[in-house]
Amino acid sequence: MLSRARSMLVDVHTHVYLPRYANLMRARTKAPRIVPSKDGKGESLIVLEGKDSGRPVGGQYWDRSEKLAFMDKHDIDISIVSTANPWLDFLTAKEAPSLATQLNEDLETYCATGPLLSSSSLRRFYGFGLLPLLPDVPTAEITSVIEQIGSLPHLKGVIMGTKGIGKGLDDPELEPIWEAIASKGLVIFLHPHYGVPDELFGDIENGHVLPLALGFPFETAIATARFILAGVLDRHPNLRLLLAHSGGALPILSSRLASCIAHDPLVARRLKHDARHYLGMLYYDAVAYGAPELTMASAAAGRGPNYAAKATKSTDGIEGWSALGSQRMMFGTDHPFFPPVPGVADTEAKWASVTENLAAIQAVPGWSEADKEGVKSGNAIKIFGLA
Amino acid sequence: MLSRARSMLVDVHTHVYLPRYANLMRARTKAPRIVPSKDGKGESLIVLEGKDSGRPVGGQYWDRSEKLAFMDKHDIDISIVSTANPWLDFLTAKEAPSLATQLNEDLETYCATGPLLSSSSLRRFYGFGLLPLLPDVPTAEITSVIEQIGSLPHLKGVIMGTKGIGKGLDDPELEPIWEAIASKGLVIFLHPHYGVPDELFGDIENGHVLPLALGFPFETAIATARFILAGVLDRHPNLRLLLAHSGGALPILSSRLASCIAHDPLVARRLKHDARHYLGMLYYDAVAYGAPELTMASAAAGRGPNYAAKATKSTDGIEGWSALGSQRMMFGTDHPFFPPVPGVADTEAKWASVTENLAAIQAVPGWSEADKEGVKSGNAIKIFGLA
Repeated sequence: MLSRARSMLVDVHTHVYLPRYANLMRARTKAPRIVPSKDGKGESLIVLEGKDSGRPVGGQYWDRSEKLAFMDKHDIDISIVSTANPWLDFLTAKEAPSLATQLNEDLETYCATGPLLSSSSLRRFYGFGLLPLLPDVPTAEITSVIEQIGSLPHLKGVIMGTKGIGKGLDDPELEPIWEAIASKGLVIFLHPHYGVPDELFGDIENGHVLPLALGFPFETAIATARFILAGVLDRHPNLRLLLAHSGGALPILSSRLASCIAHDPLVARRLKHDARHYLGMLYYDAVAYGAPELTMASAAAGRGPNYAAKATKSTDGIEGWSALGSQRMMFGTDHPFFPPVPGVADTEAKWASVTENLAAIQAVPGWSEADKEGVKSGNAIKIFGLA
Repeated sequence: MLSRARSMLVDVHTHVYLPRYANLMRARTKAPRIVPSKDGKGESLIVLEGKDSGRPVGGQYWDRSEKLAFMDKHDIDISIVSTANPWLDFLTAKEAPSLATQLNEDLETYCATGPLLSSSSLRRFYGFGLLPLLPDVPTAEITSVIEQIGSLPHLKGVIMGTKGIGKGLDDPELEPIWEAIASKGLVIFLHPHYGVPDELFGDIENGHVLPLALGFPFETAIATARFILAGVLDRHPNLRLLLAHSGGALPILSSRLASCIAHDPLVARRLKHDARHYLGMLYYDAVAYGAPELTMASAAAGRGPNYAAKATKSTDGIEGWSALGSQRMMFGTDHPFFPPVPGVADTEAKWASVTENLAAIQAVPGWSEADKEGVKSGNAIKIFGLA
């Protein structure tokens, strides 16, 4: 088992719009929707109405053979696929539960009828299911979908937006949802969508750069900080939350967060542990495009035990923290987003969004070869219980 | 000179409300204003009307002897003081220029009549001046205040908010301001104030934690990214921008920023260099409360040369980058903010907001003793031209 794990690459951050979902977006008359592209070639996804003419979408989003071709080109053995944002956020509370159930069945079929990994009992596809997370959906309907996902053998978690059921991850009404997810052993993949208000990015035209580069990681950091401050991990220590984009802005702001909590009379006594402790209970993809970034995120994860109320100080120093924290990090690509731009990069070559993340893993100074293999495959196999 | 620099501590992030400024805020009837505290003890600063009852303010904000007592208690030899936010943002374009000029004179007096550092020609106080940065102030009036600051011997820079003259740091109308500041050799201390909209932080009461811990560093990261994307450093390579709170969220998102630029057809060809290059042209305080955080920020600064269009690759690897980048980092305290909370911390002891930042500097693995002394004093002496 170990020798197999060593030679593999597992992608935990890779998206799909399943055919049923794409058709749903084609039938819509307002964003989010899929429309014929203005240049007459293919289709475009419009996420926010009036903002732009959309981004090109095609078979790479819904055709499993295109996902496999991408995986083969980049030596990715297994993909744990998830529906891309905005998930079911735009549906009504009446529509969402049945559609979530259908899409989870679709995703199970997508995975279960996909190829086996050669000379292995592992499949090449596993998935994160969808939950009908909308304000007016009865909790029992949400937990029923959690039950469904738990019963589908290739679904290993759920993808969740930062709004939870509408009010964010510090909403007390999420308690039974956390409980149900934890009891099924599912991993929550927390992924941004809403970013921060556009007016923060000013009047100068910068394409999608600022919302994607900054808005997304800010959104993840805020959601996770609110989740920590609400004491969710004090009440549900077995809940497993996987943060997109290596936790976004949270790791580098975690000591500042701890300091601001300790200096605020209103919250200084609220949590069981220093805020940094909770970063050691979270999971992170390795989608940060640089070795210093991965070092920071893994050190933030690895120093967690040192910040327990009764600290064990199992290790000390950045390299030790980073090695320990590597066990909570997992390779990802963000495919099919970030394709090479024609005229800027070679569109026939491997994608920079993949090669840069692989190069970053290789260059983390505190990670042994075994740690790097863990980030590339072993951690995901263990955390998602694939083998 | 060198032996003196080795034994010193210089604080580049330390705030005042000069008496004239405090009186101005006392005379106001809406936020920002200073009012008698509700508990009858002292005064409170209300930054946003209706949000809360304010935070206590007292002599530590305007009395130089209290600043000196804080410095002596924490072995700080020199403070480069700056007016705390919100500076002059709430004034009219008619009021701001003359008030800026008066406050700069006041600050010069505050520094020049302060004590000398024993057995040295250095003083214990230097300062950042204020500019009348408001939309309707004629550019000539702003550049005239830049001239004034340049002529005052103890003022070594200007403190600036992220709005610039109203539209952010990517506003083309700032060009003559950048030019004037660069030509005077002044350092711009970029400091947040507005954060991000409160609705992002949800309905649960968390005191000031989220706006301070996350909103501030997000604001700095957005402002700096917009500054970079506007090509300001391509046009003004000698402009020196010092980022508060170690650059906030920017260092850990800088590879993602570079990736998003490279993958966006609209901006991929705009800048002379990879976005990471520009982080090597910036300066950073060392106010991040943890060694991994300082490692990330200094590595982001130090890897800049490797990302020039014609890269020189002067060094490689995180520790080498971090050592090189340390030359752009300078100790700070954020005094008088973040005092110990009674009942949570010992109010007679040294402030954690100081000791944690000093401990963080000591624990950065890539920094030699000389690098650490540089961050504590030598870099500031050199960058601000104190000696």
